[in-house]
Amino acid sequence: MPTPVFVPVGSQATVKALTPDDLKALGITVVMANTYHLYLRPGIEVIEEGGGLHRFMAWPGALMTDSGGYQIFSLARLRRLNDQGVTFRSHIDGSQHLITPELAIQFQESLGADIIMVLDECPPHTETLKGVEEATERTHRWAERCLEAKTRRDQALFAIVQGGLFPELRRKSARFLSALGFSGYAIGGLSLGEPGALTNDMVTEVVALLPEGKPRHLMGVGSPEDIVAGVSRGIDIFDSALPTQVARKGALFTRQGRFNIRNSGYRRKEGPFDPDCGCYTCRNFSAAYLHHLFRSQELLAYRLATIHNLYFMTDLMRMIREAILSGSFSSFRDDFLAHYRPTDDEVRRAQRERWLSAQSRKGTGRE
Amino acid sequence: MPTPVFVPVGSQATVKALTPDDLKALGITVVMANTYHLYLRPGIEVIEEGGGLHRFMAWPGALMTDSGGYQIFSLARLRRLNDQGVTFRSHIDGSQHLITPELAIQFQESLGADIIMVLDECPPHTETLKGVEEATERTHRWAERCLEAKTRRDQALFAIVQGGLFPELRRKSARFLSALGFSGYAIGGLSLGEPGALTNDMVTEVVALLPEGKPRHLMGVGSPEDIVAGVSRGIDIFDSALPTQVARKGALFTRQGRFNIRNSGYRRKEGPFDPDCGCYTCRNFSAAYLHHLFRSQELLAYRLATIHNLYFMTDLMRMIREAILSGSFSSFRDDFLAHYRPTDDEVRRAQRERWLSAQSRKGTGRE
Repeated sequence: MPTPVFVPVGSQATVKALTPDDLKALGITVVMANTYHLYLRPGIEVIEEGGGLHRFMAWPGALMTDSGGYQIFSLARLRRLNDQGVTFRSHIDGSQHLITPELAIQFQESLGADIIMVLDECPPHTETLKGVEEATERTHRWAERCLEAKTRRDQALFAIVQGGLFPELRRKSARFLSALGFSGYAIGGLSLGEPGALTNDMVTEVVALLPEGKPRHLMGVGSPEDIVAGVSRGIDIFDSALPTQVARKGALFTRQGRFNIRNSGYRRKEGPFDPDCGCYTCRNFSAAYLHHLFRSQELLAYRLATIHNLYFMTDLMRMIREAILSGSFSSFRDDFLAHYRPTDDEVRRAQRERWLSAQSRKGTGRE
Repeated sequence: MPTPVFVPVGSQATVKALTPDDLKALGITVVMANTYHLYLRPGIEVIEEGGGLHRFMAWPGALMTDSGGYQIFSLARLRRLNDQGVTFRSHIDGSQHLITPELAIQFQESLGADIIMVLDECPPHTETLKGVEEATERTHRWAERCLEAKTRRDQALFAIVQGGLFPELRRKSARFLSALGFSGYAIGGLSLGEPGALTNDMVTEVVALLPEGKPRHLMGVGSPEDIVAGVSRGIDIFDSALPTQVARKGALFTRQGRFNIRNSGYRRKEGPFDPDCGCYTCRNFSAAYLHHLFRSQELLAYRLATIHNLYFMTDLMRMIREAILSGSFSSFRDDFLAHYRPTDDEVRRAQRERWLSAQSRKGTGRE
């Protein structure tokens, strides 16, 4: 797959509201599914019997699976954690489960994605130095066990660098995991509500210590401005639910920033939402029609908005790759950031908190 | 358009969960939108300014609009009715509105569908003889005024035969409206919870009296078995929300009857839901995957199920047309009805009542 790449999230074996055909038409090359969600529903064995995850979701492109670490620490209830693994209760039905590093690998081998991830411990970003240090060390021991447990040779296993917002711990984690020799390196535990400048500092610290020539994956990022900044810092892979999740709330990307199609100013707008956009939605429907679909809570609204935002992301990544190849990335970045008005940190933190609390109430999981 | 034809309902200018491209791929030739819904939201003038309904919803095929009579009498609140027209409160925001036969035509001329309908009064099927008689006579006077009010020559205006479950009133209505010379004749006020045998009797009474050579439209029908029966009785056009509405509950058609994909028997079914079906859903996804999408309340579930049911309907209509052309319709019908196990009247009535009461609570309208 060409990188830098944006990877949409399809936690429950579907990128919400889209078919595989839609994804292909959008130029999506990789989708990220989630072991935690699929383990709880429909169950790993259902997907394995059905011929693996590619076949189950009829997706011929590349697939990644997250180990479920992040979801266990953000969605599941009554966690008990020790060196063996983590015991938790399902956010769906309260049933109790144990996941160990070995099981996380076994499940992901059964699912059969092209890229799989180690099981990691994700402390909240408000955790103390001592708490984060313990979590990071456990993540390291688990990473060794995941490497040991792996049996399939046709899957790439990525490590996950942790260390919270402590530069020293981040450096320690990057060094430790680099020495183990993984196929790729993810950076976890960021973009969880901390200020964007801090995210960027941590990424810079880590990337400097990761091996050259191995893919670097910034987990849970995200917004167009963060992706452009991440590419500047040497990141190759970004996965995030953000573009699809905000689409379903009516928030649509443009080169100038994010605008909400539900706003009454769109009620009578006859032309497309973004006249500069070449997506299926903007080529075929007026802003007034999209506005009407959202106001009427019509299912088509979610699909058309998701198509628009994912088109924006694949188009952005294409421009980034072209700029890199032609040696003009830094001017592309400066131009992009000069025109793009980011949704500010405060709004983003509030959104994330509302969403997380809605998820745990509904029990429907992260994307 | 080739007839007999099934017309899916897209009340709010969208067949729920599908794009116009999906509809074309399914072989859908006509869609039925609703004047009542579109008048309340987004407003007739928004669609008119946007270039009319075809362009607003980006649908290049044929369009029908219902006048809104049925919706005013089933969804709106606090109706006051006199010969001038009907005053009602919006089911969305409680605002008060008056619709007259002349306004119903004016609105439908602004929307610009290919086939438009007269404003009719739809009493409940439990109404007394005297009540139904008055409603039918008012429907007749309104039909005359609609014909008078019509100015566009590029739209076909259909009358709506009423008369409840009273054969004498049905005959009177058919005779009266036939004499006025409409472009087509709809039969309204049926399939509203009465036993299927009674529906069929009323259709037989009416069709015998309608002019030869003009299309006959049975409104709100419906199920595969009722459509096959309706074709036997000389009906050309059927519109109904049923195939799309039950799809979103997981109820999928087969030649043997309707089965619910949510049932636990499908949890591990690796093959397609219906191995004999050629739809996009059955060609690409397992029953287990569809079951998983429904259980996980994933948006894709509604789209894939809708595609399956509409494919079933267009395929059924194609077989009906071929059987008619080859002179074998009655053996096709007998064979179809011998294998198809209909959902019984009791279940259907209960479903309709649950749905109607859910609609008035939610205020989201009939499809």
